Amino acid sequence: MPHEIKLVTETELRRSVHLDLEVINYIENAFAKLATEKVVMPPVLSMALPDENAEVDVKTAYVPGLDGFAIKVSPGFFNNPSIGLPSLNGLMILFSAKTGLVQAVFLDNGYLTDIRTAAAGAVAARHLAPDKVTTAGILGTGVQARLQMIAAAKVRSVKNVLIWGRDSDKAERLAAEMTTVLGVDVKAVADRHELVARSQLVVTTTPAKKFLLDADCLHPGLHITAMGSDQENKNELSPDLLACADVLVCDRISQCEKMGELRTALETGRLESTAGIRELGEVIAGHAPGRSSEDQITVCDLTGTGVQDTAIATFTLGKVAKAQAGTTITA
Amino acid sequence: MPHEIKLVTETELRRSVHLDLEVINYIENAFAKLATEKVVMPPVLSMALPDENAEVDVKTAYVPGLDGFAIKVSPGFFNNPSIGLPSLNGLMILFSAKTGLVQAVFLDNGYLTDIRTAAAGAVAARHLAPDKVTTAGILGTGVQARLQMIAAAKVRSVKNVLIWGRDSDKAERLAAEMTTVLGVDVKAVADRHELVARSQLVVTTTPAKKFLLDADCLHPGLHITAMGSDQENKNELSPDLLACADVLVCDRISQCEKMGELRTALETGRLESTAGIRELGEVIAGHAPGRSSEDQITVCDLTGTGVQDTAIATFTLGKVAKAQAGTTITA
Repeated sequence: MPHEIKLVTETELRRSVHLDLEVINYIENAFAKLATEKVVMPPVLSMALPDENAEVDVKTAYVPGLDGFAIKVSPGFFNNPSIGLPSLNGLMILFSAKTGLVQAVFLDNGYLTDIRTAAAGAVAARHLAPDKVTTAGILGTGVQARLQMIAAAKVRSVKNVLIWGRDSDKAERLAAEMTTVLGVDVKAVADRHELVARSQLVVTTTPAKKFLLDADCLHPGLHITAMGSDQENKNELSPDLLACADVLVCDRISQCEKMGELRTALETGRLESTAGIRELGEVIAGHAPGRSSEDQITVCDLTGTGVQDTAIATFTLGKVAKAQAGTTITA
Repeated sequence: MPHEIKLVTETELRRSVHLDLEVINYIENAFAKLATEKVVMPPVLSMALPDENAEVDVKTAYVPGLDGFAIKVSPGFFNNPSIGLPSLNGLMILFSAKTGLVQAVFLDNGYLTDIRTAAAGAVAARHLAPDKVTTAGILGTGVQARLQMIAAAKVRSVKNVLIWGRDSDKAERLAAEMTTVLGVDVKAVADRHELVARSQLVVTTTPAKKFLLDADCLHPGLHITAMGSDQENKNELSPDLLACADVLVCDRISQCEKMGELRTALETGRLESTAGIRELGEVIAGHAPGRSSEDQITVCDLTGTGVQDTAIATFTLGKVAKAQAGTTITA
């Protein structure tokens, strides 16, 4: 039976959806449902294509109370830059949670993933960072480095930002750019340990395969969100660092065990089990304590969940409908 | 980077793609690659939504030599008929196998799945049914019952067809309709065991949860293709029947163990292991024997594979481009 489907391009999506408090609150609410509602979130479908230096991930989740559920496809083809194309692409499809009919196709080339990932960073910072964050530090110089700075500034009164990148020129350029965007002082630093020492909130956004930060950089009142690792071969924080945290929070423990920072901490035996680890949704819902003093050291391991995809897709349909953006087709 | 994407509706797809020898050969070739090439086919992503009486499956496969790979999403919402909507819907997305960029969105509502499923039935009959099939028998009265009759007639000189359905009126109506479509005598029969006794080729296309055929209906020179079971709770053929077959072939053993006829045969211990079971691709490629005499009893267990989805999507893009069908958008 033919029905209406909304088709929206990346350009149109960039006009309709921005990283603001509205989307952060929406993602936060969806995370809370992970702890309070019968969310159905299957394991990530992951297809590695070593011959193409590529990997394709599919995420989804059914979230009670949301009208739709998303299927998000994220192809990563890492030879693309050599032919002038971005490595990451993909799209989201939104289905009715009542009938399974396709409601919308968001040809976002990963834009909505960027937004929902950054929003999760803001949610983690809101619930886990100390109340007073004067300095935020960012490891990495890519899209998420930019967005996580903006996200941090949405939930804390950040006075200045430090950036560290493997490529110091990139870090310098990004610092100059973000000084303008954020309207606060943003500086590149050559030593990532110095960055952590001077920051109350650190977000790691790199594709590192060997940890960049060890336990010796920890100091009282520090929160670290690690959002770079989303695959089985990535790692930004050392097992010791995770073991030394007062509070360790995962977006989804079952995912972080496989593709997050938690993986190496468990594999090396530095963490014996997941006992005591909390999920972000539990902290938001008040079912588990988050930070309980300004001096604690907190760490949040984000791998990216289907719940965020379903949330951002549902949110986006509302925004797009309101803005009368996109093309409506009958199929 | 904006690029061109082909968007094609169900109506346009029905005009461009038909169940003919060309598509049957294309699907056959893709199956052969499962045995001869480094096909990457992850397990099906399955999301059960008991509160909605629904299930969502996602299938994919990377097939070397094909330009693209498909992600196929099949939502089944089984309360839909009560509000006048079909239970099964969904779409296929075709991605470039070189860059991961979206090439096409096929809003097929399950049509391409119907075609690739029927084509697999034709491929199984071609390689496993006796050369001489005078009578083909079909269990079921749905879309696949229709298509499997057409598929059988494409690869064997079928002189007449028998249909059995739980609803005998439906079976009568389908018989009348298909007599016209096929141009051979099609009759409904009340007794499914009589149907099997009179047929050389039987295709089961039902959503049965308790087997419909037992070993006592087997006779020399019979081939049965069971394509109804594609979930963990479905079953059309008894464990004894599978154990008594001279040749047992699966589309993919690892899938049939979980969601095919093979599941109950293994669970009940009637089959002790998968030793001796062949895959359809191996038979096509000549790596494993299929039927070796007209008297053998052969059984093929089809659950539907991501390889077929990638094949039909790639095939369809060629057809659609040639017919200049669909809408080209830049996104």
